[in-house]
Amino acid sequence: MAVVFDRIAIIGAGLIGVSIARGAIEFGASNSVAFFDADESVRKRVRALGLGETFDDAANAVAGADLVVLAVPVGAMSAAAAAIAPALKHGAVVTDTGSVKNAVIAAVSPYLPEHVVFVPGHPLAGTEHSGPEAGFATLFKGRWQILTPLDDTAEGKQAVIDLGEFWEKLGAHVDVMDPERHDVVLAVTSHLPHLIAFNIVAMAEDLESVTESEVVKYSASGFRDFTRIAASDPTMWRDVFLNNREAVLEVLGRFSEDLAALQRAIRWGEGETLYDLFDRARRMRREVIDAGQDTPAPNWGRDEPQS
Amino acid sequence: MAVVFDRIAIIGAGLIGVSIARGAIEFGASNSVAFFDADESVRKRVRALGLGETFDDAANAVAGADLVVLAVPVGAMSAAAAAIAPALKHGAVVTDTGSVKNAVIAAVSPYLPEHVVFVPGHPLAGTEHSGPEAGFATLFKGRWQILTPLDDTAEGKQAVIDLGEFWEKLGAHVDVMDPERHDVVLAVTSHLPHLIAFNIVAMAEDLESVTESEVVKYSASGFRDFTRIAASDPTMWRDVFLNNREAVLEVLGRFSEDLAALQRAIRWGEGETLYDLFDRARRMRREVIDAGQDTPAPNWGRDEPQS
Repeated sequence: MAVVFDRIAIIGAGLIGVSIARGAIEFGASNSVAFFDADESVRKRVRALGLGETFDDAANAVAGADLVVLAVPVGAMSAAAAAIAPALKHGAVVTDTGSVKNAVIAAVSPYLPEHVVFVPGHPLAGTEHSGPEAGFATLFKGRWQILTPLDDTAEGKQAVIDLGEFWEKLGAHVDVMDPERHDVVLAVTSHLPHLIAFNIVAMAEDLESVTESEVVKYSASGFRDFTRIAASDPTMWRDVFLNNREAVLEVLGRFSEDLAALQRAIRWGEGETLYDLFDRARRMRREVIDAGQDTPAPNWGRDEPQS
Repeated sequence: MAVVFDRIAIIGAGLIGVSIARGAIEFGASNSVAFFDADESVRKRVRALGLGETFDDAANAVAGADLVVLAVPVGAMSAAAAAIAPALKHGAVVTDTGSVKNAVIAAVSPYLPEHVVFVPGHPLAGTEHSGPEAGFATLFKGRWQILTPLDDTAEGKQAVIDLGEFWEKLGAHVDVMDPERHDVVLAVTSHLPHLIAFNIVAMAEDLESVTESEVVKYSASGFRDFTRIAASDPTMWRDVFLNNREAVLEVLGRFSEDLAALQRAIRWGEGETLYDLFDRARRMRREVIDAGQDTPAPNWGRDEPQS
């Protein structure tokens, strides 16, 4: 089967950018890859990986590319768009991988010329590791790629079809959604969970009542689960919270309200309230596993082999 | 090497009780196992596993046992102690596996005769699965077993040594701690993380803005991590919160305070505050991995194999 985009350019060579490049090559979605990263030391590390061609200038990287992927933190999208705009090929498709969509659209759209199509996107995939070395070709396999198209013209629709095909070649399932809806849904499924994890881990680090080494030593009793997503890239996450403020604050308000009710149930010894809530939470685990979104193996199979 | 306790009796045949029995037999810590469970259907399921002998009466199960393990939810400890007390062998060691220690000591101690030694304990091990079929021999391997001894006599000290040896045969590291300290430390490392997970999962189930099926579908973006520990046994966890109320409420107060500060930083766009906090949280992940308490594999190795 033919490649979808002959040449792709990746702006931002982190976990996501490098994984897209590796997947595109390994699964035949593109013939050639160009990279740019604003950090010179990162460019050096990408060159060491021997993946495509790495440029010292964003404009040179995108020249001749059929697909340009902005895989930088949300706060760096605007500068990236400004840098590539003059060099974009006529008819190129531009997409991004930002975890928020409204803010990225506002940051990127003003810079892009009429002769390209911008299809904002967000791959719901990642690991707690960062940097070019963390990237791998199968990162997107079985995960969702959300596209939030803006352009209703024939070219716009064709770009969505082509980009969807590109992501499917990388193993992703593709969904189309309004940018506003995306930002609300992701505030619940991704942004709030990360915020809660960051908060509990940072809190445990400077408690007076319990030492950090005690928390670490006994972390297998529950705490360790939170340290994984709290190890995610701090720049990326700072930008997510600064750029999806309203949706995050709304769902955080709801979380705190429910937590206050739970606190009250504990204070007053309301066993039935606690049991009902815990029992309800348990059922959702089964749904997540049935939807193929997590493994049923106890403890995610990470501990000692079972007898 | 000789077995530590010739005959053990397990009261409560769930994940923990059955794992202790399997470990004791497989690793030569005991020669024979007796079970009792208050639930007739559970007794039937344990018999089907072909593990030791299952009794219909707690007193008959403990008769002749050198070690008795109370592996029931914290709220059921008092009734279990009352039921076994008259039948305990002279010189037997009694222990428990409750996740809180002060409340269990208060519930169990009054019932036990002078001629046995009670050594409260808590294995920091488990999975999100429950019931006798979930038990396996290596559950405790590499995990901590905390003992909170009460008895300063020669017999008391010998019982701690013997019980420590028993747990080491099952692969656990043994720590000795004050019961008060245990309850404070575990409120941080285990009880609060579970409470937070239960809260976010139950909240997501009845949001108006986002449907349950959307949350499930896109859960790999962060939410799924919380569903695992929120799948833990609701009875066990109800009893933990009812019986470690003060320590849990204190650490929950601190969590909410810190979360309010984080909320404020988001509202006012304080990027540096957010970055510093996220960066701090990230470092703790490394410590948890260095302490051998979690795997360094990205995403716990649960997703597709990497290229």
